[in-house]
Amino acid sequence: MYLLPEAQRDRLDVVLVSPRNPLNIGAAARAMANFGFRRLAVVAPHAPPWREARSAVGAPELLAFAAETETLAEAVASCTLVAGTGSLTYRRPEQPVVPLPGLGPLVERELARGGRLALVFGSEKHGLTRDDLSHCHLLVEIPTDPRQPSMNLGQAVAVCLYELAARPSAAANCAPKSAAANAETADLPAAPSRSLDRLAAVVEETMIAAGYSPASMQAANRHDLRLLLRRLAPTERDSRRIMGLFRRILWRLRCAEKGR
Amino acid sequence: MYLLPEAQRDRLDVVLVSPRNPLNIGAAARAMANFGFRRLAVVAPHAPPWREARSAVGAPELLAFAAETETLAEAVASCTLVAGTGSLTYRRPEQPVVPLPGLGPLVERELARGGRLALVFGSEKHGLTRDDLSHCHLLVEIPTDPRQPSMNLGQAVAVCLYELAARPSAAANCAPKSAAANAETADLPAAPSRSLDRLAAVVEETMIAAGYSPASMQAANRHDLRLLLRRLAPTERDSRRIMGLFRRILWRLRCAEKGR
Repeated sequence: MYLLPEAQRDRLDVVLVSPRNPLNIGAAARAMANFGFRRLAVVAPHAPPWREARSAVGAPELLAFAAETETLAEAVASCTLVAGTGSLTYRRPEQPVVPLPGLGPLVERELARGGRLALVFGSEKHGLTRDDLSHCHLLVEIPTDPRQPSMNLGQAVAVCLYELAARPSAAANCAPKSAAANAETADLPAAPSRSLDRLAAVVEETMIAAGYSPASMQAANRHDLRLLLRRLAPTERDSRRIMGLFRRILWRLRCAEKGR
Repeated sequence: MYLLPEAQRDRLDVVLVSPRNPLNIGAAARAMANFGFRRLAVVAPHAPPWREARSAVGAPELLAFAAETETLAEAVASCTLVAGTGSLTYRRPEQPVVPLPGLGPLVERELARGGRLALVFGSEKHGLTRDDLSHCHLLVEIPTDPRQPSMNLGQAVAVCLYELAARPSAAANCAPKSAAANAETADLPAAPSRSLDRLAAVVEETMIAAGYSPASMQAANRHDLRLLLRRLAPTERDSRRIMGLFRRILWRLRCAEKGR
């Protein structure tokens, strides 16, 4: 019976943003155990349901080892491909949309080149917000009936992990390349979210120093910048070079300001 | 976004055998609504959870129209392909086993030739029994981690329906043949379970009349016969011809007995 190799499953994080129902948290964890995933992160959980889910009788062991972060940015900091999930009925996404049946090959390619993935699920109440989605490289859409598009959290996690772990695909038949082989090819993984966030901070500082736009536009600029960097998907090395350039520009701008 | 055509989804029944937890019944119904299936049958449900599930706030409409039967045989009587679901950890199945990712093409072929399907889920406690499975043509296995193979009922339903409704397959691109076209080809649907049960009854009667085996073997023979007929998958016409033959034999046997 085919299942994605364990070493690859351990490079996929399931991230739940502010879950509210302990049964859903438990169901998400159980689906992870069913398909052999172990890395769960929970962002800003509501304390009572989170406590209840972790202490439930028969709770999967992985709940005890789940990471807990204040922000989504922290939860996905080490990931090179961040996929948000959701229904498209009420929103017009700014990211590329990938139907779930097409996600497998993308994920396997990213894992094969040494990347690290996050699959992000919003809270039961309103799903992922526009701000949450700005941390995602793409939005995964589960094909559902338009008359009842919105899935239960535990079932959405089950369906997504089934697609990734248990659906054999052409890409899965290629053995993952070793890190050494990667170094010699152009197919390097994208920089992790942490690096993109650092780069975005320097670019933003530069925009401000350069008087690029009025202060009222700064939040919108930050949002657009996050989207842009994820679309470009620079490698770690690209990211460092671009950051070096902006640091230099920033230094110059500040010198010029002092010199006035 | 691809979803199996509605006319085909309406020829697939989801059958829950003796479900015990109203939340699971509700979750199964919700997954059906998400993937656009409407025909639910419940076999010998425990009354209180069944009542609770149907009256729950926000329960999908299809629960109100669910069929309720005493036996699995009645629930699948009109179906030409009955697929049981389950984990293989503790049993050695007598039916062919199909991994869930391979089920789509089989189902689509059966629907395309005018057949009618049932997807059968056992109770939360022990899954489908050996007797339940003898009404199934095949056993569907969801590929799961051997350390935690057993899925929650609502999640198992979601994963199976996602596979059938939302995964595009090569077969889906062939337009379903009309009934008229079918009549001219050899690709007729198999006889529905109801016909196989009728045929089995006549064969069994004949076996008894012929003194084929001791009375203590009758239950085992009945079981094996059910399996055999499902494996052979005769068409309705085959089934009628075989039944005609056995009726004739039975008549002869009885004449001979009277004549003694």
